[in-house]
Amino acid sequence: MSTPTRVVDLNADLGESFGAWRLGDDEALLAVVTSANIACGFHAGDPLTLRRACASAVTRGVTIGAQVSYRDLAGFGRREMTVPPDELEAEILYQIAALDGIARAAGGRVSYVKPHGALYNRAARDPEQAAAIAAAVVSYDPGLPLLTLPGSATEAAAAEVRLRAVTEAFADRGYTDEGRLVPRGRPGAVITDPAVVAARAVAMVTDGVVETVGGHLVELAPRSVCVHGDTPGAVRLATAVRQALAHAGVTLAPFA
Amino acid sequence: MSTPTRVVDLNADLGESFGAWRLGDDEALLAVVTSANIACGFHAGDPLTLRRACASAVTRGVTIGAQVSYRDLAGFGRREMTVPPDELEAEILYQIAALDGIARAAGGRVSYVKPHGALYNRAARDPEQAAAIAAAVVSYDPGLPLLTLPGSATEAAAAEVRLRAVTEAFADRGYTDEGRLVPRGRPGAVITDPAVVAARAVAMVTDGVVETVGGHLVELAPRSVCVHGDTPGAVRLATAVRQALAHAGVTLAPFA
Amino acid sequence: MSTPTRVVDLNADLGESFGAWRLGDDEALLAVVTSANIACGFHAGDPLTLRRACASAVTRGVTIGAQVSYRDLAGFGRREMTVPPDELEAEILYQIAALDGIARAAGGRVSYVKPHGALYNRAARDPEQAAAIAAAVVSYDPGLPLLTLPGSATEAAAAEVRLRAVTEAFADRGYTDEGRLVPRGRPGAVITDPAVVAARAVAMVTDGVVETVGGHLVELAPRSVCVHGDTPGAVRLATAVRQALAHAGVTLAPFA
Amino acid sequence: MSTPTRVVDLNADLGESFGAWRLGDDEALLAVVTSANIACGFHAGDPLTLRRACASAVTRGVTIGAQVSYRDLAGFGRREMTVPPDELEAEILYQIAALDGIARAAGGRVSYVKPHGALYNRAARDPEQAAAIAAAVVSYDPGLPLLTLPGSATEAAAAEVRLRAVTEAFADRGYTDEGRLVPRGRPGAVITDPAVVAARAVAMVTDGVVETVGGHLVELAPRSVCVHGDTPGAVRLATAVRQALAHAGVTLAPFA
Repeated sequence: MSTPTRVVDLNADLGESFGAWRLGDDEALLAVVTSANIACGFHAGDPLTLRRACASAVTRGVTIGAQVSYRDLAGFGRREMTVPPDELEAEILYQIAALDGIARAAGGRVSYVKPHGALYNRAARDPEQAAAIAAAVVSYDPGLPLLTLPGSATEAAAAEVRLRAVTEAFADRGYTDEGRLVPRGRPGAVITDPAVVAARAVAMVTDGVVETVGGHLVELAPRSVCVHGDTPGAVRLATAVRQALAHAGVTLAPFA
Repeated sequence: MSTPTRVVDLNADLGESFGAWRLGDDEALLAVVTSANIACGFHAGDPLTLRRACASAVTRGVTIGAQVSYRDLAGFGRREMTVPPDELEAEILYQIAALDGIARAAGGRVSYVKPHGALYNRAARDPEQAAAIAAAVVSYDPGLPLLTLPGSATEAAAAEVRLRAVTEAFADRGYTDEGRLVPRGRPGAVITDPAVVAARAVAMVTDGVVETVGGHLVELAPRSVCVHGDTPGAVRLATAVRQALAHAGVTLAPFA
Repeated sequence: MSTPTRVVDLNADLGESFGAWRLGDDEALLAVVTSANIACGFHAGDPLTLRRACASAVTRGVTIGAQVSYRDLAGFGRREMTVPPDELEAEILYQIAALDGIARAAGGRVSYVKPHGALYNRAARDPEQAAAIAAAVVSYDPGLPLLTLPGSATEAAAAEVRLRAVTEAFADRGYTDEGRLVPRGRPGAVITDPAVVAARAVAMVTDGVVETVGGHLVELAPRSVCVHGDTPGAVRLATAVRQALAHAGVTLAPFA
Repeated sequence: MSTPTRVVDLNADLGESFGAWRLGDDEALLAVVTSANIACGFHAGDPLTLRRACASAVTRGVTIGAQVSYRDLAGFGRREMTVPPDELEAEILYQIAALDGIARAAGGRVSYVKPHGALYNRAARDPEQAAAIAAAVVSYDPGLPLLTLPGSATEAAAAEVRLRAVTEAFADRGYTDEGRLVPRGRPGAVITDPAVVAARAVAMVTDGVVETVGGHLVELAPRSVCVHGDTPGAVRLATAVRQALAHAGVTLAPFA
């Protein structure tokens, strides 16, 4: 009796430089991941950076996603904001469209949407902001999947408007016993040891579980695993995850 | 022997509010013009304003153009900037794409591109910036016409890459003897008397001439006439121009 | 037996234009108020606008306050943000200093600090953000009073670091039964009838009470009454309030 | 007969990080320079970065200067802008004041002003922008010196309003035969070899000359030598310059 082939996507944030400021190593990450969450200019990503990231993703066959954010360059999109839903919806539509146009000019296209930073976390528990995100995606292209945390308000909002929600897990982030991410700044929020991150990724995909900061196991069934591009040693982490997954017999392939 | 029917487009700037700040009366202008140069967020135009302007333009059957600009909210795009060509090209591509996505979500599309303010004036005499604009348009959609000043570097740059250049005249702006616009802030730069503006528009379209600040006549053959949306009394001006053109037997129709 | 003379300050928001966008009538308001909360560039107020507002306030003998805000031009500082305390403290220090330098160049000085919009409301209930504001003021000048809502976390944070807290009431805003402002967008949040606003101001100052949206009376002892500069008909409102207070025998004088 | 003691200042740009984006090694540079040109938030420098840079400069006894710029985060202040003089003056006043307030809260103060990037270059040849800078400094504190290129319009504008102009030389930048800096992006614009940079610095200070890209010698009499903080290997360069100057018997001391 054969084991079914397991398939997972590996995603990371890219295109997060801004003008004179460099962040992350886009080229190196694009050699490792199967999906690139490319910034859209609201938390990071000047247009030239986005254009180069899209061109390189197309060349390497990496799937492009729009990493939409609050308008907050000074806070890198990590400061939660209470934005009225119609404003938020329009801001997200603007970002998806801008990146998709750049991607198309490079011979590719935006194939999914993923909220960034504080917007990701807020929408996961705020049905109003989650609905604004889902509405923006539907208004642009109802065929675009939304990459989300399982059990989140974002997932529910996607279902509400018949958007495909794809669930992801975070190999380099700590989880609470409720299956949420430990907020940045708290102990255990970010994991930097490549061996630990790789082992967690394998457990997430092959066993469907992750160990929480409280020492329990929480069930997961991720179609994608995220490694953060701005974590110290991001490329090494992503490479370790990719190799460990391959070694465990998992096929790496984009979901979109 | 019958006179050939003359046809001209009437364009104005719209979508130039930003957040709490209102500018211009988009709804009233959309009832008058045939083409709307809608801001793209770099000199004005928050995403919700753009969305509303696009939706209203679609409802009224007004053609939508992308009014691209330097990144300069504080200066409303009126401060000339020396932007490296690759940066400028990417910034313009970003803006066209963002607005087109919003227009498409509203059931319309961006049908032409017009540079705004200082970018319009700089590109008219700077082949490098003009080429960056033309390259951005080509990379997004080589079928989009570029609305330009006749005899400008922008027109030449469009021809170079086989973009259609559509020439326009400014009913409410003074002209130098060289056929350039009198820079804002100089005497005669802006004309506010509706009767004068309307008469100039008719002369431009039916006689193909405009009187300069030096008292000479300069030849023009505009396919579009621009009335500025932020001029005091903009709506009254645009209405006067529209009525005078109709009275002179000119057909108003978009060029794109 | 004579009634003691009652004294109150009248404050309004000014300097809230930005570049090409005009908001409010600074000159007209400066003729009415005794204290001007001048924007500091983070939610509104380009430097030239601030300079003009400060110069005019100095000429008219109106006291200048620094109206500090979240960094949010697109949202006019009305979108609540979760800013880390050390960032928020530095952002507020930056704003106070910038405005004070402009005021001093105009022959005046910043004499108090008032948080704007969402920061005002968040700090009123969030001890962490309130403490960041108080710490910023202390680091710049521990002699500057902080204009606050009575019973707020801001008032408590000021007391904690021995800053003077001055309490204000809002003549043109609805109050909840708990003595908080009704959030903008909810019914009864903003009152626009000058006669009603003026009568509320008189009741606040002479009787020490305001009627809530629930129909109850809440006690107040404001040293300052605020009329919003961006309310429709702001100048008429402020004038009505000033006249009604004078008619009721109240002396108008700044608190700082 | 003894040689007179030569004295020179060593200045570098600092505080040029922004939010999540790091640039330069402020701590290491502060251990080497005698004057720190600290960004003011318009081309770089979030308030928390500025506060840390000022605090560290005060601790180390390094003199603080305000590195004022065009409002251009996306272009790092390197894109020349045609800003109306009254706007530019107010923008510069705002920046000096903001940084001075932060410096004073840290126990120091702004002791001089230096324009950054494109503003430095534009003002060097544009009397209008130079006059706006000088007027801003005078309006804030007529005792603050302005750090400038010798023979520049900035130097002339300072003299016009009796500001002290201090001339500097650039150890790591190429010079034209006219004594101007070779524009960035052209061959020879930036010198990265520490030995070459150090030797040029010594020649500038002890011999009063620099070799141009054309192979000629141009005379200089700098009171300060600049090493750019964002040049690759900036700290190594600055250290090499400091050691070479000390070895040549030059005393390093701030000018302000």
